[in-house]
Amino acid sequence: MIEIERKFLVKSEAYQAVATSKTRIAQGFLNTEAERTVRVRIKDNQGFITVKGKSNATGTSRFEWEKEISFSEATDLIDLCKPVILEKIRYEVPFANHLFEVDRFLGENKGLVIAEVELAHEDEHFEKPQWLGKEVTGDVRYYNSQLSKKPFAEW
Amino acid sequence: MIEIERKFLVKSEAYQAVATSKTRIAQGFLNTEAERTVRVRIKDNQGFITVKGKSNATGTSRFEWEKEISFSEATDLIDLCKPVILEKIRYEVPFANHLFEVDRFLGENKGLVIAEVELAHEDEHFEKPQWLGKEVTGDVRYYNSQLSKKPFAEW
Repeated sequence: MIEIERKFLVKSEAYQAVATSKTRIAQGFLNTEAERTVRVRIKDNQGFITVKGKSNATGTSRFEWEKEISFSEATDLIDLCKPVILEKIRYEVPFANHLFEVDRFLGENKGLVIAEVELAHEDEHFEKPQWLGKEVTGDVRYYNSQLSKKPFAEW
Repeated sequence: MIEIERKFLVKSEAYQAVATSKTRIAQGFLNTEAERTVRVRIKDNQGFITVKGKSNATGTSRFEWEKEISFSEATDLIDLCKPVILEKIRYEVPFANHLFEVDRFLGENKGLVIAEVELAHEDEHFEKPQWLGKEVTGDVRYYNSQLSKKPFAEW
């Protein structure tokens, strides 16, 4: 499938009070090339392997394929991943008619908080909550695959 | 799981007459690094995604994880793979108490025929059929991931 999303910085902690879920995520990359990212993720006790293709010109849409795998398979595969393994807390935050996923990074990316909203098509309108900051869609530095190579602490 | 196998060149076509199966395989790689190979394979109408780790010092054993995926998922993922996509015919050839898998390569690797035998442990004894040639276990040039980067026609 094609994933269409826009990405923003987050300028206050107000999202936390309205979050409907909070999940711990650890993820590593078997490949961080822009043309073919291969990600291994552990989300609570679930495992996933995800392949993403190259983004379009605006950085909004991208081929994405994902398969659930066991927790034990995921831990084996995370061991094979390139350093650094990303650690983050994901908050699900509904606002108006959309769901925002807010990632608060830990470890070497501590201090970075990014919100993503998934859209049905590139031009879809959505209302912006007050805590939403500057748009960073398409800015390669904020790709998770890049944050595993050059974490926020080194910027 | 850990995969233990030895690899040989094949010096005659005699294996074809005793093969019990013959399958067409197409495969590409999402990553060809020695530390973490990610392979997408289409075997007849079945799809697979496979992650392999680094080989041990002798090149005999290696972590391997594989998951079956649909034909349609596999074709989507093969489109994302690095060039070159490998094409080969695989023959299953039982001999004495072991099963040999013989890969006859097509396309840019035409002329290359490689037999592999899977073992229960590194020192396991196995009888060698007459058509088996020189051992190439651990020779990086014969890794499929390498054949996709530097095919036999360019040697």
